[in-house]
Amino acid sequence: MAEKPKLHYPNGRGRMESVRWVLAAAGVEFDAREFLETKEQLQKLQEGNHLLFQQVPMVEIDGMKLVQTRSILHYIAAKHNLFGKDLKERTLIDMYVEGTLDLLEMIIMHPFLKPDDQQKEVVGMAQKAIIRYFPVFEKILRGHGQTFLVGNQLSLADIILLQTILALEEKIPNILASFPFLQEYTVKISNIPTIKRFLEPGSKKKPPPDDIYVRTVYNVFMP
Amino acid sequence: MAEKPKLHYPNGRGRMESVRWVLAAAGVEFDAREFLETKEQLQKLQEGNHLLFQQVPMVEIDGMKLVQTRSILHYIAAKHNLFGKDLKERTLIDMYVEGTLDLLEMIIMHPFLKPDDQQKEVVGMAQKAIIRYFPVFEKILRGHGQTFLVGNQLSLADIILLQTILALEEKIPNILASFPFLQEYTVKISNIPTIKRFLEPGSKKKPPPDDIYVRTVYNVFMP
Repeated sequence: MAEKPKLHYPNGRGRMESVRWVLAAAGVEFDAREFLETKEQLQKLQEGNHLLFQQVPMVEIDGMKLVQTRSILHYIAAKHNLFGKDLKERTLIDMYVEGTLDLLEMIIMHPFLKPDDQQKEVVGMAQKAIIRYFPVFEKILRGHGQTFLVGNQLSLADIILLQTILALEEKIPNILASFPFLQEYTVKISNIPTIKRFLEPGSKKKPPPDDIYVRTVYNVFMP
Repeated sequence: MAEKPKLHYPNGRGRMESVRWVLAAAGVEFDAREFLETKEQLQKLQEGNHLLFQQVPMVEIDGMKLVQTRSILHYIAAKHNLFGKDLKERTLIDMYVEGTLDLLEMIIMHPFLKPDDQQKEVVGMAQKAIIRYFPVFEKILRGHGQTFLVGNQLSLADIILLQTILALEEKIPNILASFPFLQEYTVKISNIPTIKRFLEPGSKKKPPPDDIYVRTVYNVFMP
């Protein structure tokens, strides 16, 4: 049996949380005991040439040491049939993921802003979500009347969008108020068995970033 | 005959230049007469629902309106056999492209920095290139002794790396001084016939960003 994928990252969401989501949704068990807590642990990985561009996230999987968030997501999605049935579907999924990642990036960086900027940024995120991104996905779901965004089956696009919606709802509980199709979609995708388990207590899903996580990130990554 | 791809972007490099590079390398003629010069032109595209997330770059190709730089690059690369022969090669190409795009992003943003910051950033770019990125590619080329980065044939990774090296050399002429394999690689890839034509005067390659380009970008994109 192949070894479980091994994730190298601090013990928090950051850029690795999407990888945890996709592995969990694909039903892949993974080993995440190796949390980075100190600068020395990162340096050890760097000096051992385990990080192609000296950065994490890094995932050991199928004999490779994958880096770059998108590349890791693409590999897992392609391997587990989460990337469409042809190039046209793949391209739609790719575009939806890229748009959603632009929104998710704001959420990932949020805990590292100054307190004053954090409040402003919540408004900024809400606007981006409500004006730019959610209307696109609402229209797609309303248009084809299917459960999933692309090709009537679960894809990387659904997983990253659900991750982003739930993370936004933690900050802005009524963010989906004017998007009935996205509300229904969120419930349906959350009830897919692998995803349902990931959303239950005790899973490998990380909690919202707290002060300890922010301090750890500074400790590990700041020169 | 299929219509030529049509590119929607201001008349300069920015995030579209990689798309121009990949189309040119693949030998695809494209129509780039539609340069965005005013905010009204952008609004017209937005209001006509031609931009999925209200942003350019947008490329009309094969009956689709593709957005998100990476998604556009991935589609063209997959269609024109520039993305490896299997998932493992594709994943290597993806990782190399993602790393190189991180470096290229610094070059794309550079003309929009304040004059003082521009000088500092040239030093920052040179360091990133010399310490983090170029040693990786130098080692790959030295290691396998082949012309191309992956699978002994031209891929998206070679095209984006060459674009990035040449753009950096415009600012820092001796940037490859300590990378003999990358020097040889740059010459060889530049001499591939489609790429050679793109590098000659009169091609659709854009010149380095100047004040007119920077003003146009502010005019089109600033609220």
